[in-house]
Amino acid sequence: MLTTVAPQVSVIGSGAEWEDAAEEVGRLLAERGCTVVTGGLGEVMAAAHRGAKAAGGTTIAILPGEDRNAANAWADHVVVTGIGHARNLAVAASGNAVIAVGGSYGTIAEMALALRLGRTVIALAGAPEVAGAVPAASPAEAVELALRDLR
Amino acid sequence: MLTTVAPQVSVIGSGAEWEDAAEEVGRLLAERGCTVVTGGLGEVMAAAHRGAKAAGGTTIAILPGEDRNAANAWADHVVVTGIGHARNLAVAASGNAVIAVGGSYGTIAEMALALRLGRTVIALAGAPEVAGAVPAASPAEAVELALRDLR
Amino acid sequence: MLTTVAPQVSVIGSGAEWEDAAEEVGRLLAERGCTVVTGGLGEVMAAAHRGAKAAGGTTIAILPGEDRNAANAWADHVVVTGIGHARNLAVAASGNAVIAVGGSYGTIAEMALALRLGRTVIALAGAPEVAGAVPAASPAEAVELALRDLR
Amino acid sequence: MLTTVAPQVSVIGSGAEWEDAAEEVGRLLAERGCTVVTGGLGEVMAAAHRGAKAAGGTTIAILPGEDRNAANAWADHVVVTGIGHARNLAVAASGNAVIAVGGSYGTIAEMALALRLGRTVIALAGAPEVAGAVPAASPAEAVELALRDLR
Repeated sequence: MLTTVAPQVSVIGSGAEWEDAAEEVGRLLAERGCTVVTGGLGEVMAAAHRGAKAAGGTTIAILPGEDRNAANAWADHVVVTGIGHARNLAVAASGNAVIAVGGSYGTIAEMALALRLGRTVIALAGAPEVAGAVPAASPAEAVELALRDLR
Repeated sequence: MLTTVAPQVSVIGSGAEWEDAAEEVGRLLAERGCTVVTGGLGEVMAAAHRGAKAAGGTTIAILPGEDRNAANAWADHVVVTGIGHARNLAVAASGNAVIAVGGSYGTIAEMALALRLGRTVIALAGAPEVAGAVPAASPAEAVELALRDLR
Repeated sequence: MLTTVAPQVSVIGSGAEWEDAAEEVGRLLAERGCTVVTGGLGEVMAAAHRGAKAAGGTTIAILPGEDRNAANAWADHVVVTGIGHARNLAVAASGNAVIAVGGSYGTIAEMALALRLGRTVIALAGAPEVAGAVPAASPAEAVELALRDLR
Repeated sequence: MLTTVAPQVSVIGSGAEWEDAAEEVGRLLAERGCTVVTGGLGEVMAAAHRGAKAAGGTTIAILPGEDRNAANAWADHVVVTGIGHARNLAVAASGNAVIAVGGSYGTIAEMALALRLGRTVIALAGAPEVAGAVPAASPAEAVELALRDLR
């Protein structure tokens, strides 16, 4: 009856133009048996969840506010933190690896916090540049790099 | 492909003498289709997860530290918050209802925060007394009261 | 040039009917050389700061939101946490001792968190009852009890 | 008796090689009437506080842990957050402006969070590069740029 926690990969970022890439990342992660963790809101976060669900995967939303109804429609489990932008730390820390897809200041903070905690951070083309993050040219490469470090 | 988030009920508390009650609460919640959320560590938290898994349920651990390996062995999903006792807010907020089983100061804080956020809080016999919490005499009554308010 | 940090006492609570008591607590703390820490908003928090300033003391506001302008008009220093109710932990932890004046759920959470961290907690008449808090019948007694444990 | 909160400037960063620059930044800020906010620990944080105290200024330490004694020896006021790396948000948010001196991942996170909240962020030579931060070639220029935006 003991559980085996599936590998968790956090997908972070923002920007409607990156939704296709995020959806592909989510789909590929689910196909590889990973749970997809995000900040639970829209755009890249929703797209990553949508892709994971399309492939039969599991999704976790870690919300900044106090209302669970803020989660996107593809979240299986909803963690309501109530701590605002500080939830970025929880998103970064909850992934065995982190994949950034697009994004701005919040994404930079998550990437830096993840690196600070020793997590592998993959920066898909279009993500902010943060020294220490591993660049990836495609969703497939991003997922491959993220999972390589989990073994 | 849209998800339907299962009702989430947080089980909080501490004290080895309350593990049997917590396990029963976890089992009953899982039988009713609820995901069991806890602070992810030992004693009451582990027992609630153990009971849920015995009934085929799903469990979420919301940890205070930065290391996912601190989660008990019955956690399906592990949220690593890194925010210490402030993660009590996330545990309280992530339940549609909260059931306290035993416990001390940390539990009081979680009960009060849950009440502050408008969550239903059930205090199983042995839990700290906090005005506004609904007392329950047994695990079955606690689960019944928690779920009654979810409808 | 090394500093000597003045004793810091956190004053917590809510309720307009407790403002007079809170103002007296703030005044007495300042007269005893203590810095008065609060959650930085209105009612009890503002009154404690007002009392401290009337006696020439120093005040620190620890705000839940992201906007420093939410601080009451008697705050000397403003800490903007952005973490919502989780800032209650910072308020509780930043006092060498904590005095509760009136209050509701948020106050209970702060009292419990302070006790969890080993801080002395004084409950002035009207404050919520939390086991482990030391009752005081008057502002003068509350301040006396808070400072006694600092020596 | 109403207070006028002095401008608060957060000085962030790490690295023993940047202590001289941080001390100069702290001194200049204090000379301009600013309160110096830091994360409260060593190296750059301690140096900024030391410089401010040498000029008769006021300093605030916002600590990650639960123990006030972790604060450096030049802190006038100590905020004990207990939320680990999430306290970076409070450090970033508590400055009207933020000056980065040296630093690594934690500093990047603070810079990004500060930018996310609309704070002016100055990157003194040696600080991590984050788009949106304003570069400064010297402590004097950094302070000038930080204060220019406060007017």
